[in-house]
Order: sequence, then C-alpha cells, then structure tokens
Amino acid sequence: MREFLIYSRKGSTSSDFTLKDLPGSGGRMDLNARCIISALWVSRNIRRDTRIMISLNGPPNPPFVIAFDGNELRKVSPDERNISIWIKKALREADEARDDKWSETHEGIYISKKSFQDLIRDNEDRSFYILHERGKDIRDIEVRGNPFFVLGDHIGLPRKEEKFVQRYTSEKISLGPESYFTSQSITLVHNELDRARKYG
Amino acid sequence: MREFLIYSRKGSTSSDFTLKDLPGSGGRMDLNARCIISALWVSRNIRRDTRIMISLNGPPNPPFVIAFDGNELRKVSPDERNISIWIKKALREADEARDDKWSETHEGIYISKKSFQDLIRDNEDRSFYILHERGKDIRDIEVRGNPFFVLGDHIGLPRKEEKFVQRYTSEKISLGPESYFTSQSITLVHNELDRARKYG
Repeated sequence: MREFLIYSRKGSTSSDFTLKDLPGSGGRMDLNARCIISALWVSRNIRRDTRIMISLNGPPNPPFVIAFDGNELRKVSPDERNISIWIKKALREADEARDDKWSETHEGIYISKKSFQDLIRDNEDRSFYILHERGKDIRDIEVRGNPFFVLGDHIGLPRKEEKFVQRYTSEKISLGPESYFTSQSITLVHNELDRARKYG
Repeated sequence: MREFLIYSRKGSTSSDFTLKDLPGSGGRMDLNARCIISALWVSRNIRRDTRIMISLNGPPNPPFVIAFDGNELRKVSPDERNISIWIKKALREADEARDDKWSETHEGIYISKKSFQDLIRDNEDRSFYILHERGKDIRDIEVRGNPFFVLGDHIGLPRKEEKFVQRYTSEKISLGPESYFTSQSITLVHNELDRARKYG
C-alpha cells in the first residue's frame, strides 16, 4: 500500500469554488486534482494499491481532508474538471460536518474534518517519507514497505507541520536537482517504487 | 534544447470543442494540456530550454500541430482549462489556414497544418528517441545533446508513424515497468535529463 498526504495551504474548504477558475477560486485546486491523477492513474489502469489524501487548509472553514482510494474508486475520470466536481460534491455534503470521522461521499472518496496532524497521528506506526529538496536522493535509499509520503504544495510544507512529522519515524527524501510540482514528484516516486518492485 | 512531439489521434482540429468536456469534445485535450504542463513547467519556473509540439489528428480538419515554446511563452498558466483556451485560440485563428507555415497566435504559441511526418522531416538532423514500452531503459543509455522525443497518446503511436520515424537516426526507449500516461512519461524523461546534466 502506497499512501500520499499532500498539505494544501490554500485549497478551498467550501464547495462554492468555480470550475472555471480552479487556480484562483479553488485555491490551486488544479494542482490538487493533478496530484490525484498522478497518484491513482497510469495509462489504461487505476493504481489499486494507492491512496491519496489532500489536507485542505484554505478559507473559509479549514481544515478538511479528502481521500481518494484507488482500490475502491469507480466511475471517476482523470481530468482536472471531473476530479474537482467530485471534490466539490464531497465538500458540499460535509459542509455541516463537525466531527472528525470519515464520510464516504462516492465509491472510494472520503471526507473528514481531520487536520494534517491528526492524519499523521492516525498513521504513527508507518514510515513517513517527507519530500524535501535537501533530503537524501530516493535512488540512494531503500523505501520500506507500506510507505507513507508527505508532500507540501507549490509553496512547500509549512515548517511547523514538517517538524511535527519528524517526531515520528521519518526520513527526508529528494528526487533530483529541480523543484518539481507536487504532482510531478508523485509520478517520480511511483516510478522508483515500480522499478524497485519489478527489478528488485 | 529538449523537444517533445506528441501524436494525438483524436485531438480536436476545430476550435469549437467545449472547455466543459475536454476529454470528450476535445478528443482528450485534457491529456494534451497535461503534456504541455509536464513539458514546460516545474515549481515556480518555466523550462526555457524546452519546446513541445502536439500533432492533432482528430476531426474535423486534420492535421494541425500546435507548438508551445518555453523560451518565448508569456502569461500562460499551467492548468488544463487555461492551456486549452490558448489551444482554442490558435485553432480559431488557423481555421482557414491552408499552407504549412507556422503562425504565432500568442507569445510562444504557434500553429501549422504540418503533419506528424512533416515535423519529423523538418528535424531530420536530430536524434529521435521514441518512447516505447519495449525500448531500452533510459537509465541504460546516454541521451545525446538536443534530443527530440516522440511519444504517442494514451493509445500509443500508430505503427505507420513509428516506422516513419525509424527511417531516421532513432532509438526506442522505455521508462520502467508500467505504461505511464504521456504526461507522466515527459516528467520521467525530464528528471533523467536533469540528473544527467547535474550529476554527469
């Protein structure tokens, strides 16, 4: 099981963002949608062994977290607009949510009021890999089973959240000499794990 | 200079596709837009050393080719909807085009009636790398300077076009054990070249 958790600073926490302006009104919801696509789809297939969670921390009602589970997902198309429609639906049905339980709003799509730190605590027995430009090169380490990758958005992971993850078993890893988009980083991580699984 | 040429079987050759249905009415224009994003953007930067061309071969008036040049591009945002708006504009202004010259429809965006084979002929002095699941692993070869990468869409490169490229200096390369989306393949190619440039 591969798991990705993205911290989105500005991702909308209301369903009233417009599909005509995902970058602005959605708080870079286009980036979040591309992360979900990179995490869960390859050509002609869904990655059934992968789950991605986006921690939304933008206005007006943070935090919310949306999870897409590759093993359960049905009838979702991998394009920004369609993914965003499902995120809007989840936010609409959760607008009144007060507790931090998970609600399933479509097959394989869940929403909760859990914070980023709640999600780390919920997974405290996992090995966390924090994507970071000054981390160890992923090609020089051995990624343990059931890895849990933690990524920031285009601005990066806030220092406070990074420090919180570092209280647990964790390692900072990097992917090369450029600062890649979060969605591109997910593609690069998957490729390393695909190669390791196939070629050992 | 890194160059990518994508063969899009169904990409719309009219400007009248709707932004509300890029996968259907646009002929998977969402995929094409994501290829352009992967080719030209990293976090906080445009790749000035990269150019991408999408050969559109869908109805009603194939072929058209749209080029995005990272060195000249201005005021374009990297999300599917915005990229598609620029593609629509290029197709609208070229709807009456009959010859195969390039017209610039915005800074760094060009359109022409050139076919996929015209584009290969125009670049006959380059080294072509054909992305192919049964090619040599990119990590086992040395990519020559000014590489020109040729990729199919989600269905793959038509056999006829693949054979045509193989008349020139060319090599088939692969990226790992999965069938990645074309946009994901572009990210993986860039990462290999970024690493080679930095670490030698």
